[in-house]
Amino acid sequence: MPLEVVWWSAADGSQEAGVGFIDQRALPHELVRASATSVDAVVEAIATLSVRGAPAIGVFGAYGIALAALLHGDGPAFEVAAQSIRNARPTAVNLAWAVERVLAAGAPSYLAEARSIHEEQRAVDRAIGTHGAALMPVAGAVLTHCNTGPLATAGYGTALGVIIAAHDAGKRLHVYVDETRPLLQGARLTTFELERAGVPATLIVDGAAAATMREKKVAAVIVGADRIARNGDTANKIGTYGVAIAAAHHGIPFYVAAPRSTIDFALRDGSGIHIEERSANEVRQAGGASTAPAEVAAYNPAFDVTPGRLIAGIVTEYGVARPPYDESIPDLQTYPSLGSLAALQ
Amino acid sequence: MPLEVVWWSAADGSQEAGVGFIDQRALPHELVRASATSVDAVVEAIATLSVRGAPAIGVFGAYGIALAALLHGDGPAFEVAAQSIRNARPTAVNLAWAVERVLAAGAPSYLAEARSIHEEQRAVDRAIGTHGAALMPVAGAVLTHCNTGPLATAGYGTALGVIIAAHDAGKRLHVYVDETRPLLQGARLTTFELERAGVPATLIVDGAAAATMREKKVAAVIVGADRIARNGDTANKIGTYGVAIAAAHHGIPFYVAAPRSTIDFALRDGSGIHIEERSANEVRQAGGASTAPAEVAAYNPAFDVTPGRLIAGIVTEYGVARPPYDESIPDLQTYPSLGSLAALQ
Repeated sequence: MPLEVVWWSAADGSQEAGVGFIDQRALPHELVRASATSVDAVVEAIATLSVRGAPAIGVFGAYGIALAALLHGDGPAFEVAAQSIRNARPTAVNLAWAVERVLAAGAPSYLAEARSIHEEQRAVDRAIGTHGAALMPVAGAVLTHCNTGPLATAGYGTALGVIIAAHDAGKRLHVYVDETRPLLQGARLTTFELERAGVPATLIVDGAAAATMREKKVAAVIVGADRIARNGDTANKIGTYGVAIAAAHHGIPFYVAAPRSTIDFALRDGSGIHIEERSANEVRQAGGASTAPAEVAAYNPAFDVTPGRLIAGIVTEYGVARPPYDESIPDLQTYPSLGSLAALQ
Repeated sequence: MPLEVVWWSAADGSQEAGVGFIDQRALPHELVRASATSVDAVVEAIATLSVRGAPAIGVFGAYGIALAALLHGDGPAFEVAAQSIRNARPTAVNLAWAVERVLAAGAPSYLAEARSIHEEQRAVDRAIGTHGAALMPVAGAVLTHCNTGPLATAGYGTALGVIIAAHDAGKRLHVYVDETRPLLQGARLTTFELERAGVPATLIVDGAAAATMREKKVAAVIVGADRIARNGDTANKIGTYGVAIAAAHHGIPFYVAAPRSTIDFALRDGSGIHIEERSANEVRQAGGASTAPAEVAAYNPAFDVTPGRLIAGIVTEYGVARPPYDESIPDLQTYPSLGSLAALQ
C-alpha cells in the first residue's frame, strides 16, 4: 500500500469525526498526521499547502463536504461551508470538480461519493503505474522532476507511481531526483517517498540534470503534468521543459504520466495554456532564508510548456499514447469513464 | 570603476598594514569591508570563501605575501607563512601561480609585483569586456549563470564584465540571472553586482532558464569558465551544460568569456577534465536550512563540461575565438603575454 495521505476519520470514543491528512509542510523531517475536525480546518489545510497536489486536494475536499454535512446538516450554514471548501484554492480544478461531484450525489451519499472519488484515484494511478512500468528500463538510471507520488494524488502517484510500480515489479532502477526549485518538492517530498518505497534515489540540483544524464547514463526521464493539449504539448512544473530539451539532446526518451483528466481535449496546442506567475519571493528565498537583494526583480513562472515533439510517450490510465499525438490523444476520449475503470478493477 | 574587492592597506596612524577585502559571505545583505592584518587572517579569508573566485584569490594571495614579508621578514617564519597562503585552497590554480610569481620577484619587490598582478588582471578583464561587448545585442535580453563579475576576479569580471561593458557602451541589455544552485552565486553576488552597475536584471531559478529563453526572447547567453580544452570543451559551474543545450535548442548564441590563462593548451578535449564533487550537504540544504531527508544520497559535481560544438565563441583578452576551436585556440598561444598586454594599456 502507498502512504495514506488523506483519509476519513469516523467519530469514536476517543476522537471527533474529521478528515485526516499528512501535514506535508513538516516533511521530510517529520511525518505529522493531523485531522481537520471543522470546515475552517479543512480550508486552512488546503490554503496552507498542508495538503497539496491537485488530485490529493480533490480527494481531501470531497471528504471535507461529508464533514461539513455532518457538522452543519443541510441548511444555509452547509451551503456556506461547501462554497468555502470549493474556493480554498481557486486554481485547483480537481477541487471544484470533486466538490461538485459530491454535492450532486445528494446528502445521504456524500461520504460514499467521497470514498468513490478516492477509490477511483487509486485505480487510475494503479493503471498508470502498470502501463508506465513497461517503459522503464530493466535496470538503470532514471530521472524525475518535482513530486508526483502518493503525496500528490492521495493514491499511488503518477510519474513516481510508474517508477515505484516498476521497482515493485523487480526492475532495478536508480532514481535521480531534481530538487525542483523554487519550492523544492523533489528534495522535500520525492526523496521521502522513494526512501519509503525502498527505491534507491539520489538528489541533484536542477542545474545538474543535464550533466547527470550524460555522466550517469540516464535511460529514461518521466514527469507528471498539470495540463496537456491535444497535440501533446504539456504544462508541468517549471524546469520540466529544460529537462526535456536535455533528454532530447542525449537521445533519452522523455515520458509524461498523468490521468486522462489532465488532458484538455479542447486545447489545440500549448500556446493556449496560461502560465501562472507566482511571488518573486519564492525565488529570492531558499529554505526560508533570503538569498538575493531584497528589491531585485524575479521571474517566477510556476509551470513551463514542453512541446509534444519532445515527448516520447504520454502514459494515462488507458495505456501509452505515442506520437503523432494529434491522432493518439483524441482517441483517449473514446474510452469508458474513470468510474467504469475503477469498477473493473 | 568596478567595485574594489581586494586592496593593499598601508599602515598609518589609524590602522595596521593589511590586505583589505570585501567579505563576500555577507553579500548581498551587507557590504562588509575587512582587513587581514595577519597571515592567519589571510589564510582564513580564503578558506572561508570570504574571498572567492579564482583570479580574486590570486590577487589576494599575492598581497598576502607582501604582508607576510612585512610581518615576518625573510626568515623561516616567512617561508612557513608563504606556504600556508599558497595552500589555503589547494585547487585554486591562480593562487599558487600568483604566490610563486611574487616570490620569484624577490623580497624588495613583493608589493610591487602583487600590484602588477592586480593591474594585469584589470587590463585582461577590460580587454575581455571590450571584445565581448561587440557580441551582445544592441538591445535585448541576455542570460548568465553563476558569478563572473568584479567579485570573482578583483578586476572588471569576465562574462559579467562583458555584460557591464556592453551596458556602459550604451547597449540596452536586460540580464536574466540563474540563481546557480547549490551555492547561489547568481542570486547572492551577480544580482548585487548588476544592481551596483545599473544594469537591469531579473533573477530566475535555474530550472526556469529554458522557459525564459523562449518567453523572454533571450538573444545571447554568456558565461565564464574554469578550464577550457584545446577543442573548446569548457568546464564551468554546474548547470552551464544544460544552459548551453537549451540555448542551442532555441538557436541562441552561447558564449564563454575567460582569460587565456583558463585555457589548458595541453588538454585535447573535455574528457580529460577532472570534475570535483563537493559535499552532499550543499544539495541537501538551501539558504542554510535542511531541505531533504538527512540521509538521502546527493550527487554534487561542482562543474560540468560543455562541448565546444555548443559554443559560438570564446572571448579572451585577445579577441573572440570561433569554431573550429582546434585551429583558433592554439593560435591564442602565439600572442604576447598578459604582462605585455597590461603594459600597452
